[in-house]
Amino acid sequence: MGDEKILLSHGSGGKMMHDLISGMIKQYFSNPILDKLNDFAEVEGAGKIAISTDSFVVKPYKFPGGDIGKLAVCGTVNDVAVSGAEVLYLTLGFIIEEGFSMKDFNDICRSIKRTADEAGVIIITGDTKVVEKGAADGIYINTTGIGIKRKYYNIGAEFVRPGDKVIVTGMIGEHGIAILNSREGLSFNTNLVSDCAPLNGMIKELLEACSTVKCMRDPTRGGVATTLNEIARQSSVKINIFEENIPINPAVQGVCDLLGFDPLYVANEGKLLIFLSADEEQKAIEVLRRNKYGKDSAVIGKVIEGSPRVNIRTILGSHRIVDELVTEQLPRIC
Amino acid sequence: MGDEKILLSHGSGGKMMHDLISGMIKQYFSNPILDKLNDFAEVEGAGKIAISTDSFVVKPYKFPGGDIGKLAVCGTVNDVAVSGAEVLYLTLGFIIEEGFSMKDFNDICRSIKRTADEAGVIIITGDTKVVEKGAADGIYINTTGIGIKRKYYNIGAEFVRPGDKVIVTGMIGEHGIAILNSREGLSFNTNLVSDCAPLNGMIKELLEACSTVKCMRDPTRGGVATTLNEIARQSSVKINIFEENIPINPAVQGVCDLLGFDPLYVANEGKLLIFLSADEEQKAIEVLRRNKYGKDSAVIGKVIEGSPRVNIRTILGSHRIVDELVTEQLPRIC
Repeated sequence: MGDEKILLSHGSGGKMMHDLISGMIKQYFSNPILDKLNDFAEVEGAGKIAISTDSFVVKPYKFPGGDIGKLAVCGTVNDVAVSGAEVLYLTLGFIIEEGFSMKDFNDICRSIKRTADEAGVIIITGDTKVVEKGAADGIYINTTGIGIKRKYYNIGAEFVRPGDKVIVTGMIGEHGIAILNSREGLSFNTNLVSDCAPLNGMIKELLEACSTVKCMRDPTRGGVATTLNEIARQSSVKINIFEENIPINPAVQGVCDLLGFDPLYVANEGKLLIFLSADEEQKAIEVLRRNKYGKDSAVIGKVIEGSPRVNIRTILGSHRIVDELVTEQLPRIC
Repeated sequence: MGDEKILLSHGSGGKMMHDLISGMIKQYFSNPILDKLNDFAEVEGAGKIAISTDSFVVKPYKFPGGDIGKLAVCGTVNDVAVSGAEVLYLTLGFIIEEGFSMKDFNDICRSIKRTADEAGVIIITGDTKVVEKGAADGIYINTTGIGIKRKYYNIGAEFVRPGDKVIVTGMIGEHGIAILNSREGLSFNTNLVSDCAPLNGMIKELLEACSTVKCMRDPTRGGVATTLNEIARQSSVKINIFEENIPINPAVQGVCDLLGFDPLYVANEGKLLIFLSADEEQKAIEVLRRNKYGKDSAVIGKVIEGSPRVNIRTILGSHRIVDELVTEQLPRIC
């Protein structure tokens, strides 16, 4: 280890973060609950509780379509909801830089409140720390979400099987490109907004309609590509996706083409990847499209036997491996 | 609000933080669970779950007697344990500055592991964010703790009654002064170490021996004075304390005298204030003193009828009001 430094890539959601977690984090903290490496933890209380924690450091803290407050609610609500739990409670920890605008803090709190109301969750405890000017960049927020699992016990990244279909609930990459676009000196002239949204309502509708949902995950840091790789590894399956089926906003595609980004690696904050049995694919698409957050849902791939990896068939008909994100493409998008 | 800025004092644990919380935080997030403003939240799952969250920004992140990792475990474990719950689980969120030493990160993880083992808790989920150089000061950690309440339901800052006694479980002010002493340019020649410790074991021993414990709280930010004021307000009682009974290390007293600090306002990270019936005070002291973290426990005051405030009878026999901390005395001690 010696003089090794933490790099931005260690927080990117990609391979370096995976290595850091597999190495140091698992070395120290390994236990059957944590080792599942889902974004949520489930503990046996009296009953089954699902828990997820996330720190938000997005830059800038206000962006088209949301702010760090909305993001901090959506990100954690979604992480708990994909477990199949009913999300009920959030904790809220602020780290604020001295000199931060009180008005902006108020706006962020209002945004948290509005989003929590929409998601039907309440903030049950919190903490505020203030650090000197220069010791943080405005404001960071940690949220921990707690949900109760009353049913839907067999949902998780280890339950995906060959034959399952892969659904994405809308156009990919909007959050990452909206953040990029709102950074100084990078303003493309688009109306692009972040897709940041609480998805627990849509998840509930899906689970009530479909009984074969194996796994749901929100493709945030590292994007669709990284999340699919995680699931392929955790379920030991191969995933084939079809580029022509992947919904994408032309503005996102345009910015990606200009800057050399692959939209498969760009973060989403209001989308789900859903794995379920082929016989329920049509019903799922119908249910999802009725929800405003799922209107562009599409089946983008299928699961087959094979060594854990992700393949894409491009629009031109060629095939290539979609690897995990290795280094940071866009730092601080959540 | 206009151009108002967040000040360091807004995170001090004192009056300005109280105002910020009573104002903006409660304005937005008010609900019966949060409004109790205990350091922990209790939610009805199936069974009763206690939850607490805290972000740690201590500077420096290594100090005599501990580091930010040990502190992040102890602080949250203690906040959950004072509810009477058995602390079982922690979540762990890192915000790390790019360029942070991997060796130091490893040391911090090891310290978290060691402390979690001592406390008998496991890390069940986590999150790592890395921000650019200059966007944080080394490393910040959020922990959320989850405990199960099997009994001891009537413990909280609202249950204190006239006639109750006040116990402190050891010498006060050691954490704050140890931190101060380890900052650049302020090295006094003492062997002072932080009292940072997980107290859930000692709390369990106390609760098994004594049935009249009304309230326990760890006097961290804002120290004994601020915590007593919070409890006086929440239970609508007057609290009298006696300076001659308050245990204090002469080195802490010396540094405070030199710098003009009042040790009643200096943070502790391994001490409890305990309120219980007078008839169990001796038994409690005996039980606490048998534990290594409680060997200097002492009865320091009593609760009487009256408007909510804290009075001290000084060693010289005079009386004065002990007010809440108003502005930041020592920033970033936890």
